[in-house]
Amino acid sequence: MTSATTLTGHKFERQFFEAVVKRRLFFTETFDIYRLSPNFKGDNRGLFDYGPPGCALQANIVDAWRKHFVLEENMLELDCTVVTPEPVLQTSGHVDKFADWMCKDPIKGKPTASGDYLRADHLIENVLKARLDRGTGGLTKDAPKLDQATIDEYNNILAKIDNYDGDGLAELIKQYDIRNPENNNEVLPPVPFNLMFKSTIGPSAASPVYLRPETSQGQFLNFKKLLEYNQGSMPFASASVGKSYRNEISPRTGLLRVREFLLAEIEHYVDPDKKQHLRFGEVSDVILPLLDRETQLAGKTTPQKLTVGQAVELKIIDNETLGYFLGRVLLFLQNIGVDLSKVRFRQHLANEMAHYACDCWDAELLTSYGWVECVGCADRSAYDLTVHSKYTGASLTVKEALPEPAKVEEWQATLDKKLVGPRFKKDAKAVQTAVEELDQTTLESLATELAEKGVVAIKTPGLADGSTSVALSKELLFIAKVTRQVNTREYTPNVIEPSFGIGRILYSLLEHVYWSRPDAVERAVLSLPLAVAPNKPIAHRISTRLRKLGVANMMDSSSASIGKRYARDDELGTPLSVTVDFDTLKYGSVTLRERDTMRQVRGPEDDVVRAIKGMVDGTDTWEQVLNRMP
Amino acid sequence: MTSATTLTGHKFERQFFEAVVKRRLFFTETFDIYRLSPNFKGDNRGLFDYGPPGCALQANIVDAWRKHFVLEENMLELDCTVVTPEPVLQTSGHVDKFADWMCKDPIKGKPTASGDYLRADHLIENVLKARLDRGTGGLTKDAPKLDQATIDEYNNILAKIDNYDGDGLAELIKQYDIRNPENNNEVLPPVPFNLMFKSTIGPSAASPVYLRPETSQGQFLNFKKLLEYNQGSMPFASASVGKSYRNEISPRTGLLRVREFLLAEIEHYVDPDKKQHLRFGEVSDVILPLLDRETQLAGKTTPQKLTVGQAVELKIIDNETLGYFLGRVLLFLQNIGVDLSKVRFRQHLANEMAHYACDCWDAELLTSYGWVECVGCADRSAYDLTVHSKYTGASLTVKEALPEPAKVEEWQATLDKKLVGPRFKKDAKAVQTAVEELDQTTLESLATELAEKGVVAIKTPGLADGSTSVALSKELLFIAKVTRQVNTREYTPNVIEPSFGIGRILYSLLEHVYWSRPDAVERAVLSLPLAVAPNKPIAHRISTRLRKLGVANMMDSSSASIGKRYARDDELGTPLSVTVDFDTLKYGSVTLRERDTMRQVRGPEDDVVRAIKGMVDGTDTWEQVLNRMP
Repeated sequence: MTSATTLTGHKFERQFFEAVVKRRLFFTETFDIYRLSPNFKGDNRGLFDYGPPGCALQANIVDAWRKHFVLEENMLELDCTVVTPEPVLQTSGHVDKFADWMCKDPIKGKPTASGDYLRADHLIENVLKARLDRGTGGLTKDAPKLDQATIDEYNNILAKIDNYDGDGLAELIKQYDIRNPENNNEVLPPVPFNLMFKSTIGPSAASPVYLRPETSQGQFLNFKKLLEYNQGSMPFASASVGKSYRNEISPRTGLLRVREFLLAEIEHYVDPDKKQHLRFGEVSDVILPLLDRETQLAGKTTPQKLTVGQAVELKIIDNETLGYFLGRVLLFLQNIGVDLSKVRFRQHLANEMAHYACDCWDAELLTSYGWVECVGCADRSAYDLTVHSKYTGASLTVKEALPEPAKVEEWQATLDKKLVGPRFKKDAKAVQTAVEELDQTTLESLATELAEKGVVAIKTPGLADGSTSVALSKELLFIAKVTRQVNTREYTPNVIEPSFGIGRILYSLLEHVYWSRPDAVERAVLSLPLAVAPNKPIAHRISTRLRKLGVANMMDSSSASIGKRYARDDELGTPLSVTVDFDTLKYGSVTLRERDTMRQVRGPEDDVVRAIKGMVDGTDTWEQVLNRMP
Repeated sequence: MTSATTLTGHKFERQFFEAVVKRRLFFTETFDIYRLSPNFKGDNRGLFDYGPPGCALQANIVDAWRKHFVLEENMLELDCTVVTPEPVLQTSGHVDKFADWMCKDPIKGKPTASGDYLRADHLIENVLKARLDRGTGGLTKDAPKLDQATIDEYNNILAKIDNYDGDGLAELIKQYDIRNPENNNEVLPPVPFNLMFKSTIGPSAASPVYLRPETSQGQFLNFKKLLEYNQGSMPFASASVGKSYRNEISPRTGLLRVREFLLAEIEHYVDPDKKQHLRFGEVSDVILPLLDRETQLAGKTTPQKLTVGQAVELKIIDNETLGYFLGRVLLFLQNIGVDLSKVRFRQHLANEMAHYACDCWDAELLTSYGWVECVGCADRSAYDLTVHSKYTGASLTVKEALPEPAKVEEWQATLDKKLVGPRFKKDAKAVQTAVEELDQTTLESLATELAEKGVVAIKTPGLADGSTSVALSKELLFIAKVTRQVNTREYTPNVIEPSFGIGRILYSLLEHVYWSRPDAVERAVLSLPLAVAPNKPIAHRISTRLRKLGVANMMDSSSASIGKRYARDDELGTPLSVTVDFDTLKYGSVTLRERDTMRQVRGPEDDVVRAIKGMVDGTDTWEQVLNRMP
């Protein structure tokens, strides 16, 4: 499947879909009345508010996520602050590396809808796609037709567009004469733009802070406390749901590229030598559509269907723990109503990966905007814990007793301190530090050299006379292999991180469950599953009874016709509607209507309340209700 | 009650309490390993992370809040962005007025623990309280004893400390020789410090934004869409739960004064002429401890106990809607386990109120830090909707059809355009605008003057010759009373805003439910009610069964003794513990232990699971379980 369709397989017409979500206030541009006001100047793109049904849908998705991951696996949930001091993000690499490549349109006085700044990779993508669509080679309609070689060339670039760095993007812009499509201006070469929002904390303005771009850093910094809380037992996971921020260069495409968004993230801490997973068997038969690195670099886009078990065995997925989470992600998406025929797992290309990741698979969902990254599963290795530990001096490791003591052979260097002191005087300490910091490989080769030549040069920083190394003879330096007994093992855990963009999932889900009644394209329905649907309109007394049972619902006492009310329910994705009419007063019976089939049953109020509660809890189904009620 | 006690009425020892919440990771200072690192410089005070039990307790309190308010009254919940463009907060008054008074300690080279900046009102409060505690009149121990008149004077200032503006605070600092208590330095006069975090959005740096200091503005800006969503029906409420930010000058006192915090806010939109509330009867008998403005200005602090009904009748509480919410707030606090003997409702003093409020009552909870504002109930009148409407030009009003057409008598001014044009030439338009903008009171007095003198002066801005008024004779201007028929009424709703600081409520609640076993002060218990307690430790199979029923729980498979495990459960506030032992394997029976009474029952696994689920749902009680199980 490569282009978006409605749930019933018809062409997806975005303008009808957008009219529904706007009319029903699922979400709306933030500060709309300001944006539309002639007095307002400034940039407020990429910010969205969720209205009542969107807010409820979002809460239900997060609730389902918590049950599926956090509660199911006893993950340790945290709520960390968004405001983050600069040194933390300096250490994590975000201050230096968390950037996109940006091109400025230098020609003043011609402001474009997208502003004067363009994200370089998106610019190239848009221009090449437009050329492919038009079938021409250049900027104008009259440009010569594209030949097959050029078409292949463009498609090849597009398939690996995420793999270009700044120089690569600059080269493409030059080679293919890429310009601002809105005004045909040439653009300046790409420069990096850091995506974090910056501020200062406290009254003195001397303490810079950023809004976190991900929830993970707060989790990592609590690692030692969490390990203690978990009574020292490994592996375990922490989890966090919270707002995160990225100052996108040029946000468009609605909810899919926003500057403030809800992330739900899991950090699973695992022994790097034991990446098996205890519950792997539960997901090993789940079938995943996998688009690996090699396939993409070959310019192809058709995923391979493999079970999690096969993919791990074939080493397409690196290890059991990563495979386990990819399987669990698919099951979660299925639970909340995502169309599985519109899901694929795509492996990141080498240059595309975040600076902290050593491998990454994205769960992508097909929408009318193309394939959208909704869940990222990164293997962050020991990167974060290592850098934070180095900066702060805090130990972020796991120590475990070995089942039995082990013998370790290692190279050891010893200095004759009696001779070194008088020989190097003030430099003696620098020499000693340099020797202590030699690694095993270096020691091994130095041992050979020392035996052969009787003297070696050791790189030594901080010498008084400004030279960079010292010569040590075998009288001063002694290198030998020794055997040491160890009773414990100390390691920095690796981190597997499934990271969920809740807003993107919510938007893609809405596209997936959208369809129209066959008789009229404007009669829209959102077939959201009962577990996540915002609410269930109902009459007053029944509403009160369901509320007491914890079932979210909405009463519609307007004077609208019954047809209009049902249409409203359909567009809100309301799975069940109860109608109270004259017969209710007379016989105490009410009508229960199911959204997708539009079929109705009639029965006593008590039976209907019990049926609704049962269906919400998952202990009853509409088919069973249909069978037993008239 | 004026000083903090444990739940069992013993002296509250903060160091023991803090040890428990720290040990059990309810919350912890953010970026702790950075704060403790010698490499770290900068300010990260006032930021806290919630660990697993704190995070669960917070989620349960928010869940209880949603059920009690949002679900119960069909409020329209929104999730709006934190990032807010400057014009919005300029219009709302926050850019100019959302500030605290700050004193700088000018002496360099002597950094104090609290930094170089002090919040003026807190500084005065701390110094005067210390003098009262010491019983001396000045900075040193040897200063003369306080006489009764001075003691009364100090107490009087403290009772109304929130009522001083910048000049008032400066005067107090001078008059009472208030100095930085940490180093005895004199401080500079107070200056305003804006409490909002500032940043910029987009790549051009030309668009300043702030982190919202409250969730309300996003709700107000969606008013028109919400009114439509609610099918035009009034009154109704919107609600929002989300992070908000205040760059506090000098945060101390743990969770009680933080720079990033969770707010749960309700904006109830009501016709200013109809502030009755349909469900007022449900709370009119609830008894509130009220500390009104007059009592405080008299220097007194003893609240008056009145029912909501009495307080509204006596006009102590302004109207039914405000009274309704104060009653509902008390019931909510009771639900989640707050000690009602440690609650009071305090009315804001005139200068203390936020710039947008015309009346405000705080629900304050007694803690070891004194009385803490946890819920604010402000009447924001039509302030916010009016200013946003004025800036944007968007209509933020309600139009309602009158039950029958009404006749309105009003003064009307008419200019003879044929004469005005030639007479005033270029100024004619300015004159016409000036006349159109005259209000009813002015028109009435002008009518009399015109009849008496035959000519009136009208203030007219923008005249060509720079003069400020024109003379209009009765030949040019005609003023008369006319009768007009109107079919609709248009009004800007008033807003009643109950605003909940979730972190403060959580902290105060923890203090309220804390006590020690009589035999040992270090054996701490947190008697959190079942509805909000973080979790319920349990053995594996039972854990799985309860999880399927949606009951959050935690399994403890450590090798710790049963006594240590129960102690851990007590400190986590875990209401029920299940123990699986050798008898379980033999007879299939397990032990269920209740936290507060430490009593245990033993029974088959099925019965115990059913009992736990029943107690969590509120359909069963521990007393009933005790009665039917051995």
